Amino acid sequence: MRSLRLLLPAAALLAATLALVSVTHGQARTPVTLIVTGGTVITEDAARRVIPSGAVAINHDVIVAVDTAEAIGAKFEGAEVIDARGQVVLPGLVNTHGHAAMVLYRGLGSDLALMDWLNNYIFPAEKKTVSPDFVRVGTRLAALEMIESGTTTFTDMYYFESDVAEATRESGLRAVLGESVIKFPVADAATPEEGLARAEAFIEQWRNDPLITPAVAPHSPYTLEPGTLKAVRALANKYDVPMLIHLAETQDEVKQIDARFHMSPTKFLESLGVWNGKSVAAHAVWVDDADMDILAKRGVGLSHNPESNMKLASGTAPVLKWLAHGIHAGIGTDGAASNNDLDMFEAMRVTAFLHKLANMDPRAMPASLALDLATRGGADVLGMGQKIGSLEVGKQADVITVTMDGARQTPVYDPIAQLVYVNRGDDVRNTIVAGKVLMRDRQVTTLRRADVLRDARAMAERVRSAVK
Amino acid sequence: MRSLRLLLPAAALLAATLALVSVTHGQARTPVTLIVTGGTVITEDAARRVIPSGAVAINHDVIVAVDTAEAIGAKFEGAEVIDARGQVVLPGLVNTHGHAAMVLYRGLGSDLALMDWLNNYIFPAEKKTVSPDFVRVGTRLAALEMIESGTTTFTDMYYFESDVAEATRESGLRAVLGESVIKFPVADAATPEEGLARAEAFIEQWRNDPLITPAVAPHSPYTLEPGTLKAVRALANKYDVPMLIHLAETQDEVKQIDARFHMSPTKFLESLGVWNGKSVAAHAVWVDDADMDILAKRGVGLSHNPESNMKLASGTAPVLKWLAHGIHAGIGTDGAASNNDLDMFEAMRVTAFLHKLANMDPRAMPASLALDLATRGGADVLGMGQKIGSLEVGKQADVITVTMDGARQTPVYDPIAQLVYVNRGDDVRNTIVAGKVLMRDRQVTTLRRADVLRDARAMAERVRSAVK
Repeated sequence: MRSLRLLLPAAALLAATLALVSVTHGQARTPVTLIVTGGTVITEDAARRVIPSGAVAINHDVIVAVDTAEAIGAKFEGAEVIDARGQVVLPGLVNTHGHAAMVLYRGLGSDLALMDWLNNYIFPAEKKTVSPDFVRVGTRLAALEMIESGTTTFTDMYYFESDVAEATRESGLRAVLGESVIKFPVADAATPEEGLARAEAFIEQWRNDPLITPAVAPHSPYTLEPGTLKAVRALANKYDVPMLIHLAETQDEVKQIDARFHMSPTKFLESLGVWNGKSVAAHAVWVDDADMDILAKRGVGLSHNPESNMKLASGTAPVLKWLAHGIHAGIGTDGAASNNDLDMFEAMRVTAFLHKLANMDPRAMPASLALDLATRGGADVLGMGQKIGSLEVGKQADVITVTMDGARQTPVYDPIAQLVYVNRGDDVRNTIVAGKVLMRDRQVTTLRRADVLRDARAMAERVRSAVK
Repeated sequence: MRSLRLLLPAAALLAATLALVSVTHGQARTPVTLIVTGGTVITEDAARRVIPSGAVAINHDVIVAVDTAEAIGAKFEGAEVIDARGQVVLPGLVNTHGHAAMVLYRGLGSDLALMDWLNNYIFPAEKKTVSPDFVRVGTRLAALEMIESGTTTFTDMYYFESDVAEATRESGLRAVLGESVIKFPVADAATPEEGLARAEAFIEQWRNDPLITPAVAPHSPYTLEPGTLKAVRALANKYDVPMLIHLAETQDEVKQIDARFHMSPTKFLESLGVWNGKSVAAHAVWVDDADMDILAKRGVGLSHNPESNMKLASGTAPVLKWLAHGIHAGIGTDGAASNNDLDMFEAMRVTAFLHKLANMDPRAMPASLALDLATRGGADVLGMGQKIGSLEVGKQADVITVTMDGARQTPVYDPIAQLVYVNRGDDVRNTIVAGKVLMRDRQVTTLRRADVLRDARAMAERVRSAVK
């Protein structure tokens, strides 16, 4: 029951149709590298235009036209054509927070109290296993999962970030990668100063990459001293790169900062000038109106991670209030150790469910808003709103196609409701980043699937030994 | 990357191994109809035994042995053998609440206030479209989705229930089917008296069926008069069948019953003697300790529907309190109009997430408890705990096998955490009910998939016209 196929007969038929149109109009069609045609195109543009039988024309890395399949067929000739009939075509999903390599700890020590889990599973495992090789193997596995589930841009806060970047480049994904800075000795730095130096070297090395935005990632307000937090901001501003940070995730964090500084975490960072530049903060569960005023004024992008916040019992972030304050908001999966997967479709669904319940109103977070957050919203959070997040002429060609023809998806009355309430990553059939097809009809083109899984399973043996 | 195959070479190899074992032991092996072998068997028995390389021997409809693959291979010879290596084998999932045919309204009028949705979408659609043909087409689609997602027993409250039963019989699923009784004119009854008569005829007709348990389904305390509620109980007790009812789903319901009867919905039904017999109540979001004492004392089974309760913003059912009161609890998806699918894996996951958050404790609802609720708990709710809900000798052979080898499932440290936090219905590869293989390596054997989808899409056209 696959409705998308790269069948020769279909391609031939299309070519014939295009040729006919061409002859009819008596004009040459413009050659482009790729056309995705025939699906319901959900543009996520400012007007939220949906084109029932639409197409996207792509030349190299850029979208050159978004229109009806007929109009695109008349004007353009694609070197490659993806037949998306019976599918939905939409901007690739933007995951605004996570720790990619932690897929290698997926499901390790579930259902424990937070400190028990961290102290007896995650920290010992990280201490004994995190290495350049580990993060490469883990990032490849995460990239495979993300490509297979329709994420085209992801955000990372972890260690050995230059190795994360190498593995990400192999995969073809777009990413914002933040080298961690934290006050404890960690796998790639004995001190925060070493972390800062490593972050600077990483930024220097990657700052001109077309797909990878290097960043610096101070872990959180409660795991760094004021001086280091200021130094992190200075470093980010020196290179005009984003700072990625965990913020106000738990009540405990709020208590700790209050006990030391008599302020909320948000105000504490404001008092240090840490928000004076590009910033992405994850969670922001425990923020009040004054905090949100600061975050809005400073243009901080916030990443909502509903599955992690539920599974770890952190609380319910006031996402509708974030939006009412004019804050840029997106969705993240967090690391797979606390979720336990990287499926942004599920993250959209849980976002919608959670805020309907939290607001006791089924209208509170409609499917269309959850989709906005996972696409254009996420792009804005990462400061990339001009470049990605919607299907519009001139933007980067980050596009996914999604099937709608399974039993559990039948019938379709409202494609956006279906995307958010029924679909899953597994329904994605094609994943395109910067015009390059990373997955074609469920076959990932950039990573060798069997090798990635084999290496991950071998690495998992080391993790098992580490937590014994 | 499919680890399960019914390959002839593998079967031949297994047969050879079995023969060898037989010769070695010098004794004949007992012939059985089906062996599922080689997977991690999660029994869900009283000891929650997990057998890493296990097998289940099935003869006709009954489980005759659960042991290591080696021990089963030495003792039994299967007419059919399912190779479940690399998979998890567990009891089929039990969906304790739903409206199967409402899959035909999947996603219709999403994100609206409850009464707007019901009055402008669901009720007009039901008025114009519900018919014997509609419920057959809808139930077949729902059954296809349920078989494909590992549900082996489902619960239904709808109209034309004898047609639902016919379609269910075709599918091979096990079900508790309740003919609706409600005070308003509905598709199959102009009055509640007609509904009662239809329910009695339905029970008479189906009460000796091996897989279908007929039941009577009074809609709710607020949509029936006291006299009818008493009559419903009398009818259920006359035939010793369950009564299925919606209970305390919304605060509004509680207010309505309080305004008329100055009691909670649970106490109102208790005052009428409605709980004196087999009963399954769905939702029970707004119940207090006194209500739960009554429900425990009367042995009422409760169905928790977290996705529906979140999406419709009904509230958070106090499931841990239900359990503390000794109430039988299971999980349901509710109808696909309000969920929007019938995937019990997702229902397990959201159950775990929701109660961790509601109790602000990540230990509150571990994966193992969510799995209990979806299997043995659900069986108890339906009064079928002696018959289904675990893999034990003498129980009905309702068994599913689930893959664990995708990128998003790698690595596996804890199969139960993986089942609940990562897996989805699509990961189910084999679905067996009463020893009959309803889905073999993703191919449904009892329903013609293409026909089911075609009929559903045709029926959806009528629905579209009805709500225009």
